[in-house]
Amino acid sequence: MSERLPQGFRAAGVYSGVKRNPQKLDLSLIVSERPCTAAGVFTRNLVFAAPVKLCRERTPSQTVRAVVVNSGNANACTGTQGDRDAAAMAEKVAGIVGCSHADVLVLSTGVIGELMPMQKVMPGIELAASRLSASEDALVAAARGMMTTDTRPKIAGRTISIDGQPITLCGIAKGAAMIGPNLATMLAVVMTDARIDMGDAHEGLRDAADESFNCISVEGHTSTNDSVVLLANGAAGGPVLKGAALAKFQATLVEVCEDLAQSIPADGEGATHMITVEVHGCRTRDEAIQIAKTIADSPLVKTAIAGNDPNWGRIVSAAGYAGVPFDASKVCLHLNGSLLYERGQPVPFDSDAVSRSMAADRNVGVVLLLDEGAASARFWTSDLTAEYVRLNADYQT
Amino acid sequence: MSERLPQGFRAAGVYSGVKRNPQKLDLSLIVSERPCTAAGVFTRNLVFAAPVKLCRERTPSQTVRAVVVNSGNANACTGTQGDRDAAAMAEKVAGIVGCSHADVLVLSTGVIGELMPMQKVMPGIELAASRLSASEDALVAAARGMMTTDTRPKIAGRTISIDGQPITLCGIAKGAAMIGPNLATMLAVVMTDARIDMGDAHEGLRDAADESFNCISVEGHTSTNDSVVLLANGAAGGPVLKGAALAKFQATLVEVCEDLAQSIPADGEGATHMITVEVHGCRTRDEAIQIAKTIADSPLVKTAIAGNDPNWGRIVSAAGYAGVPFDASKVCLHLNGSLLYERGQPVPFDSDAVSRSMAADRNVGVVLLLDEGAASARFWTSDLTAEYVRLNADYQT
Repeated sequence: MSERLPQGFRAAGVYSGVKRNPQKLDLSLIVSERPCTAAGVFTRNLVFAAPVKLCRERTPSQTVRAVVVNSGNANACTGTQGDRDAAAMAEKVAGIVGCSHADVLVLSTGVIGELMPMQKVMPGIELAASRLSASEDALVAAARGMMTTDTRPKIAGRTISIDGQPITLCGIAKGAAMIGPNLATMLAVVMTDARIDMGDAHEGLRDAADESFNCISVEGHTSTNDSVVLLANGAAGGPVLKGAALAKFQATLVEVCEDLAQSIPADGEGATHMITVEVHGCRTRDEAIQIAKTIADSPLVKTAIAGNDPNWGRIVSAAGYAGVPFDASKVCLHLNGSLLYERGQPVPFDSDAVSRSMAADRNVGVVLLLDEGAASARFWTSDLTAEYVRLNADYQT
Repeated sequence: MSERLPQGFRAAGVYSGVKRNPQKLDLSLIVSERPCTAAGVFTRNLVFAAPVKLCRERTPSQTVRAVVVNSGNANACTGTQGDRDAAAMAEKVAGIVGCSHADVLVLSTGVIGELMPMQKVMPGIELAASRLSASEDALVAAARGMMTTDTRPKIAGRTISIDGQPITLCGIAKGAAMIGPNLATMLAVVMTDARIDMGDAHEGLRDAADESFNCISVEGHTSTNDSVVLLANGAAGGPVLKGAALAKFQATLVEVCEDLAQSIPADGEGATHMITVEVHGCRTRDEAIQIAKTIADSPLVKTAIAGNDPNWGRIVSAAGYAGVPFDASKVCLHLNGSLLYERGQPVPFDSDAVSRSMAADRNVGVVLLLDEGAASARFWTSDLTAEYVRLNADYQT
């Protein structure tokens, strides 16, 4: 684990006044000293925010210099004024950094349907620019500036050696659930000093996101603002990564994305358990993901786990309605390592012991085995507690 | 509203001992004096219970005489012994009624993964047979005998006149959510003294279920036991219904099914609101249902409504991830009659007034308008409260 900025990156996180509480940070800035190869993956929601539109138009790219992130206002469902505000944020950063406005990306999270308070955001960008630093404190501040209902900043990193050259990857993320007053989001920025092609960056980020950010959910509600951005500035030197070197980089990128992705349900609103659902023996990975996601999104599964209840019936029946054909008489299920269901039938097990193992550990492992093929998937989610409902229902009262 | 058994039907509901609490009923019997045209629609879950397997094999039919229903044990995931137990229940009823065992249907709901306590069920069937009656009390008892976590029996009926002939339809149903210790179910039996063809019964029930039982959810978890059965014994006399007479019957069948279906989320576990989601302006009804169901199943929408929060962002964004393409810039949304979102943009509205209207009425209406076509759908669900989580998480503690 290396939680430090890669070479050639500086970061800052400040309070601009978008959030009500001045104890919190709400605006982050990341600047690379040289142009970055950049790629992005974004929400599949048809209703998407102005900054998502802007980033989609500007990635992939070979010339990105900066990313500005704000929390507290999602700039979603804000019409053409929202587009103008996102563009103005990029332009403001470009003026300070000294680059084209097209080389700045914008990410937003927070309230939807309200215009961005530009009179606060614009001075906030100036303040952030004045505090840019390569220090670990600056990295943590940038991670904090993205947070909404997150209880802690989410940072993951690795330093690896490729052909004797140290290469650093570092990502920051936010996301705890969709929350009030409207909805929140998953955002992540992964920085690296590796030198990679635009095409490799684009494909690599897409593949890494498929194995990480696309394998988590808190309650299955896809936000309007979800964005993951990769910036590679090449400051580590050396040739453009290809072949085995690129593969090693890619494996590390997946690890960093998995670390960040898992930290989101682990910090799920009101969550008392982090649930890992593994599904094996499927015909295709898509089918395995579909089953894993259906189990992970079932409120009945999530409430059972919140109650430390080894309720195999809810898990097996959730698999059964995932829309994927399988032979139900071949299904086996393990919970926290105990076999609860074998070849389509419940098996005797010590329910109290399994329940105690769930109560004793924040992590709960669900492993479902089918007999249809060799494809697998892992999916991460949080449990569903009364506290989650309170957080999401009662903010007005 | 006519809550009485159609001609030629008798019913009973008794306590057999499957449930722990002897104050509750847990076994119901419905017998027709003459053979019925019968049809059924069943869970699409790949993991389905023994009685579902039995009923699938025996419907549609022209010779059904009886339905036995038990609550407290779902006879699901019970292997070949489960199949033998379901068959034995049918055989026991057949012996009493004096018909072939193949003319008896079996419905079960309750705990899954435990063998049916046949030493309790078999005497229970005898007891129920000794109490068969055409009275309203017997009808209510039969409805109670199906209940699991339902707080009230669910009965709906109509008497209509077709060519001067009174025709009665009466249905009983159960369902409040999937619940512990494992999961529950939606069951419904609709009886009529109309005379209809087997093919018309089959198609008519399928269509009616599509407009009613397939348009509700409490938490989106499809049970292993869901079953809806139609019995038509022809005791009202007259010719087999065809043409306009059949259409009138069918419209009434839909009404009865809608009444029963709506009563399920209205009695949702811990629910404080009954939510009706209407989606208009879609290309196809399937797409309209897909969007309505996605909104209805969103925990964020359901918690917002529990909190009397007119949170249009959660509703519009749920539509956006339903997997149905639409032009987001044309979307309009009404909540309890107030316009909150128009042509892709939020509109100013009195948030406190809308919130008060939600707090004042158990029923909440969500109307989403697209501009893609002329198809519509209605979907019913309940809100998501901390009480629901408590019911589903804490039964063990």
